[in-house]
Amino acid sequence: MKVGIIGAGQLGRMLALAGYPLGIEPLFLDRTADTPGGQVGPIITGDFADSTKAIELAGRVDIVTFDWENVPSATLAQLPAHKVRPCARALEISQDRVSEKALFRALDIPTSEFAEVDSRADLERAVAAIGLPAVLKTRRLGYDGKGQAVLRKAADIEPGWRKLAGSPLVLEAFVPFEREVSLIGVRGTDGAIAFYPLTENAHTGGILRYSRAPCRSPALQRLAERHVRRVLGNLEYVGVLALEFFVVRGRLIANEMAPRVHNSGHWTIEGAATSQFENHLRAICGLELGATLARGPCAMINFIGNLPNLASALHEPDLHFHDYGKSPRPGRKLGHCTLLAPTAASRDARLARLLRKFRREGAEL
Amino acid sequence: MKVGIIGAGQLGRMLALAGYPLGIEPLFLDRTADTPGGQVGPIITGDFADSTKAIELAGRVDIVTFDWENVPSATLAQLPAHKVRPCARALEISQDRVSEKALFRALDIPTSEFAEVDSRADLERAVAAIGLPAVLKTRRLGYDGKGQAVLRKAADIEPGWRKLAGSPLVLEAFVPFEREVSLIGVRGTDGAIAFYPLTENAHTGGILRYSRAPCRSPALQRLAERHVRRVLGNLEYVGVLALEFFVVRGRLIANEMAPRVHNSGHWTIEGAATSQFENHLRAICGLELGATLARGPCAMINFIGNLPNLASALHEPDLHFHDYGKSPRPGRKLGHCTLLAPTAASRDARLARLLRKFRREGAEL
Repeated sequence: MKVGIIGAGQLGRMLALAGYPLGIEPLFLDRTADTPGGQVGPIITGDFADSTKAIELAGRVDIVTFDWENVPSATLAQLPAHKVRPCARALEISQDRVSEKALFRALDIPTSEFAEVDSRADLERAVAAIGLPAVLKTRRLGYDGKGQAVLRKAADIEPGWRKLAGSPLVLEAFVPFEREVSLIGVRGTDGAIAFYPLTENAHTGGILRYSRAPCRSPALQRLAERHVRRVLGNLEYVGVLALEFFVVRGRLIANEMAPRVHNSGHWTIEGAATSQFENHLRAICGLELGATLARGPCAMINFIGNLPNLASALHEPDLHFHDYGKSPRPGRKLGHCTLLAPTAASRDARLARLLRKFRREGAEL
Repeated sequence: MKVGIIGAGQLGRMLALAGYPLGIEPLFLDRTADTPGGQVGPIITGDFADSTKAIELAGRVDIVTFDWENVPSATLAQLPAHKVRPCARALEISQDRVSEKALFRALDIPTSEFAEVDSRADLERAVAAIGLPAVLKTRRLGYDGKGQAVLRKAADIEPGWRKLAGSPLVLEAFVPFEREVSLIGVRGTDGAIAFYPLTENAHTGGILRYSRAPCRSPALQRLAERHVRRVLGNLEYVGVLALEFFVVRGRLIANEMAPRVHNSGHWTIEGAATSQFENHLRAICGLELGATLARGPCAMINFIGNLPNLASALHEPDLHFHDYGKSPRPGRKLGHCTLLAPTAASRDARLARLLRKFRREGAEL
């Protein structure tokens, strides 16, 4: 089985590494060869907007998937729909925050109030309707906190507008959340669905810093599964999908979805019976889904901006290191590690100690 | 860190896949590019006897290691000794069954009686000294039961001689063993040593068919560790080494050693805190060794001659599939799977059921 992967970042790299043992051969498409994926598998280089490259990719593989959801619609439209998993519609919806939130509403999944903003006048109307604080975001191409401005008071409106004007925008009510969690679900070609345990995520500056799983709350797990099941079913989705939620007084408010493997699921490589990467491949290749239960309490720490010293990190027992093969740059995700621990308490103690240690070594955490 | 791997078979492939997350870049040397290793990493093609290729490899990497121990001594001699791990002496000893058994004797590690056989007259003398049954073997290049003839009675001597004459031979006493076990040890550049739990192995026709671990016998574990510790220390070994033993009435009789990662350690990929592949890389790269404890009862089944149906295999819960990317051929190791189970009894029951299933599907087991 040959799987084409559009985008050769760290997600594509981990997909390729999960695929080799199953006999699944990857073929990447990305702008340059020296990418995390291109270092571990063959690659076609080309722009994502150049549909001839995507068509070439599709012609050389059995299934096309993505490690990046912002492939232009015009490119997606050129690909044979039966080979594209998840489907183009899932990508298109997730490319636009307004479509995404409209889908949540249509499926009765609670999400924050929002309004489209295409002009300064729209912004005033939206602020009047939604109130402050609120978050002004680009509808498209936002990630890791980029393309956002928090409007806390009236004086923030003008600078926020100046920062983001020029792109279609959306104003979202600020959610005073207690915690952020995400649920990763996977749906097979036969409609079978499996869910990983809920993961609790800590962001700073819009970037995921660390995650802990399983987040043991049967009520929230059930609720999150109900929401994700609706999205998967509605989109006739095939593959892994992540849905991020805010937790507010025992309720879940959907924030955003990712139609792909997700940073908050990296702990599943060592921490679950089947990793999210293997399950995504199983799903898109028409294979049976693997078990999603956690092997025990896990934590995942992102390495952002620079990698900690490998020798020093490997001193930690049952720590699993993941270097993405990228050159350091502030704010860039360069790798992660997963910790496995016998109890949630020992996991949390080790996590706190390691965060301090990595910060001392200069990590952005 | 760049690691050169001489031999790009399945062992090299699994080394490369274990290295990528640590940021270790592989570079293979093998005769052809379309090898299990060459499918997942860059490769220099050339004959192992062509020392210019091995020198080129060594020049492009930080450390040179092996997935195949039969690299010609003349080639090994051309490589910078400080880059070669494990050392050339370990490979040279393991290339010759007589040197290997002489080392066992020198280190007071019980091994079967043996005698060198360079002529028909030597063979008569050896049979007279050792008795029958005995096993006549080529001193060099034997693997997976190749290069062997079992001499049960006097009438087997002449056919055995005719089968193997022409190479330097060794006659070994036949060991009426109850079980076969192996111990995998790993030694770092700082002399630190770690051992995996003892593994019990089932061979048919000289080829490993399946393994079970951990083989819980504290007495045998201690004994095996004592033996392997001596070998590692004597050779100032760096990396993973496997020692195979026959179990005879609670005693261990050393059969042979492998100066590399070993088929009987494949269960460690999912079944141990750190896999043998990662620990070999940690050792040769001068990093701290990882924990070797088993996560629970495991079994490993080799796929020989043909692969079982992937979809059918993945139906089994907590089964981990490993396809080596090789074309099918009778007697050829094409892949393996590892089973994880909550108890040794459930592991054994699932192993028995899976062996029947794979045999029904045409596997050589």
